[in-house]
Amino acid sequence: MPEVNLARGMRDFLPEVMRRRQWVMDLVRGVFERYGFEPLETPAMERMETLAGKYGDEGERLLFRVLKRGEGGHEGETDLGLRYDLTVPLARVMAMNQQIPLPFRRYQMQPVWRADRPQRGRFREFLQCDVDICGTSSSVADAECIAVVYDVLNALGFKSFSIRVNHRKLLCALVEILGDPSVRETDVLVSLDKLDKIGRSGVTQELQTRGIGAGACERLWEVLDLVDPSAPPEEALRAIAPALPEQGQEALTNLREIFENARSLGVPEDSFRFDPTLARGLDYYTGAVFETETLEPRIGSLSGGGRYDRLVGIFLGKPLPSVGVSLGLERIITVMDELGMFPEQRCPVKVWIAALDSPERASTAQIPEQFLGRDPTLPERHAALELAALLRKHGISCWVSPEPLKARKLFRQAEQRGVEFVACIGSKEAGDHVTSLKRMRDSQQWTLAPGQLIAIIQES
Amino acid sequence: MPEVNLARGMRDFLPEVMRRRQWVMDLVRGVFERYGFEPLETPAMERMETLAGKYGDEGERLLFRVLKRGEGGHEGETDLGLRYDLTVPLARVMAMNQQIPLPFRRYQMQPVWRADRPQRGRFREFLQCDVDICGTSSSVADAECIAVVYDVLNALGFKSFSIRVNHRKLLCALVEILGDPSVRETDVLVSLDKLDKIGRSGVTQELQTRGIGAGACERLWEVLDLVDPSAPPEEALRAIAPALPEQGQEALTNLREIFENARSLGVPEDSFRFDPTLARGLDYYTGAVFETETLEPRIGSLSGGGRYDRLVGIFLGKPLPSVGVSLGLERIITVMDELGMFPEQRCPVKVWIAALDSPERASTAQIPEQFLGRDPTLPERHAALELAALLRKHGISCWVSPEPLKARKLFRQAEQRGVEFVACIGSKEAGDHVTSLKRMRDSQQWTLAPGQLIAIIQES
Repeated sequence: MPEVNLARGMRDFLPEVMRRRQWVMDLVRGVFERYGFEPLETPAMERMETLAGKYGDEGERLLFRVLKRGEGGHEGETDLGLRYDLTVPLARVMAMNQQIPLPFRRYQMQPVWRADRPQRGRFREFLQCDVDICGTSSSVADAECIAVVYDVLNALGFKSFSIRVNHRKLLCALVEILGDPSVRETDVLVSLDKLDKIGRSGVTQELQTRGIGAGACERLWEVLDLVDPSAPPEEALRAIAPALPEQGQEALTNLREIFENARSLGVPEDSFRFDPTLARGLDYYTGAVFETETLEPRIGSLSGGGRYDRLVGIFLGKPLPSVGVSLGLERIITVMDELGMFPEQRCPVKVWIAALDSPERASTAQIPEQFLGRDPTLPERHAALELAALLRKHGISCWVSPEPLKARKLFRQAEQRGVEFVACIGSKEAGDHVTSLKRMRDSQQWTLAPGQLIAIIQES
Repeated sequence: MPEVNLARGMRDFLPEVMRRRQWVMDLVRGVFERYGFEPLETPAMERMETLAGKYGDEGERLLFRVLKRGEGGHEGETDLGLRYDLTVPLARVMAMNQQIPLPFRRYQMQPVWRADRPQRGRFREFLQCDVDICGTSSSVADAECIAVVYDVLNALGFKSFSIRVNHRKLLCALVEILGDPSVRETDVLVSLDKLDKIGRSGVTQELQTRGIGAGACERLWEVLDLVDPSAPPEEALRAIAPALPEQGQEALTNLREIFENARSLGVPEDSFRFDPTLARGLDYYTGAVFETETLEPRIGSLSGGGRYDRLVGIFLGKPLPSVGVSLGLERIITVMDELGMFPEQRCPVKVWIAALDSPERASTAQIPEQFLGRDPTLPERHAALELAALLRKHGISCWVSPEPLKARKLFRQAEQRGVEFVACIGSKEAGDHVTSLKRMRDSQQWTLAPGQLIAIIQES
């Protein structure tokens, strides 16, 4: 036997885990649909032309490439790559389907693949879950993205989280404040993005190695300090306003609108905040950016997104103003597991049905003609199968034991698997057209005709 | 702009199509769960060691291979392949998770990839949908597979189909009848498998080129002719019995049990039949085989499967008696589309909410302080957003127009998209805290307070 194993960084999802994942996905899908987001799926493989040059050097390295097929192929040439995110495929879809009415509100929940070094909680295949609104620059769309994140997390049972909001133009204004035209915006963003990890002194140090003077850094912190992190969003905006140049004011006006809209959409004031230090490294953002932090316990970001007015139009050849947010479903599932947030998982199967392999055999007189001279438990088996059909017709999930079982073994197995009810049919029950039903929770037992049995199970 | 395109043989699923696919998948999942099948998912990539040698020469050629990654990689070496079916991954899972209690009833619905020549209705990425019962050789399990197929197709709305059932051991007995020990079983199976396509004379010709004499062929058809295709299953079994040697009798006994079980499980007698010509080419079957044919119109097989007692144990190193069936979901969806079997698709979004860009502006007195001196439609916008939040809280799906619209444009767009209701809020409505609701179906209009509005929408 050769060693059997999964590919590196990959996972199987066995039933118990699958059910939790499905529970999350179904719930998220329900919220998305109430918001009028529409489902989209794209293929696992894209042409290399579509993927190349979209993810930076790092991303390019992490793409899984598929070997060219067919006669003369198999020589190391690649023309396809595996889906790396859901945004580039969306951009391709928008270019290929210009008949889609705008604004287009889509959600997409599909795995992506990245050849990252596998580590705890990090896999090479993982689910991505994006919502985007394409074709409008209205602040209503930005607010809907904040509101849908709030509603999803709330519906999943998260109590203590905050959606941090900032604006790319405000960050540009901050760079302007530094007063050094040679400073690259991206450098500042990338450094600021590490604030949570390396702290202020770390960021300052990094900025200085990038050639930004001590005075400029000090000025940066002074402006950022104008905002009290615990202040209500609008108050925070007002506090920083006087310190910002023109393009910063635009950002503030836009943020103010987004906050007002979010509040009207029912997002509670304490669930979002203005955070001028939020950078979100990626350089395709052009407006608001958001990221969700959990407060207790602190377990990193559960979602992130923002407005990117150029990216989705990349294959269209013209900007397509869009705003979107990505839910970190894998992290969300891990966290919910660790915090015990999943509803108690009962056995998904409600009833275990079995023919009893009982010592007393039915007398020949009771055996229907067709079963005569054959396995003596046949009548019980067929009564068990008929009961299964009846339960399923009533929407009740059940297993039928493929073999007749001794009562003791049956109850032991039923307890191990955690089913709620055991329905068993011995020779006497089969003869009388009844079933012996046991409720495992309290060991109550009944002998019931089919109709009564359905009623008791449905009421439980 | 470079040409933008999908990879060959791949599809995007836009919302309208996605909703139909989801409808089918949700329904199928529901039936599986009533039968107590449990969900399993395996990764898109498997190690080449796992896949190699499992799919025959043809399959091997159609595997998508992934390039080796990392330092020194990218030189054409492959160590991973894309999922080609759901059975080999299941076999791997059973070997790696021997703690799973048997019998294990699992379903799996995931895409697989095959580098086939793309053609009409044939794609390189397609959904597979398998149910299997592993760890029992009971005829109850075979019958459950037949019953679940019947229930799924019935629930999807198929009326006229028949599940053809045969037995691999009966086919072996037929080969025995040919009386020529040099005849290879597989040759006969492969030829017989083409009966639907090339007819009797075609099969006879093929058998003769394989060295089977005219007399033997004649004897084969004689035995097969003993069965009237329209006869009830048990009668058909009785008809062929006298002509079969020992191993044929075993098969008949097993089939008789399976048929009895299927009937007890509620499968109507006219939905399955014994068909001694059903071969199912694959050589891993060891017992019953099934295939679903549609009768009107004839559109090929919608599902296929059977008992394979060795395959699932391939990595375990010992046989694991299993029986399973694969639903051809892609074909099922295509057929349902062509036959108009999908329930009428309404717009999934029930209400379109918009602020009205009306000529009469609210007087300053009506504008809340926070909106003074800004976009004059702000109060309408916020009333619209509040209404959206309220509807979603009641589980009603709605879109909010990101921009205020003129009434005429709004109604035209609403009609195009097919929403049931339009809720609009002009300056007067915003001032009075009411909404103008129009039911598109009959153009009925109301001016309503929020509570009344919810009631009317929910009743519609």
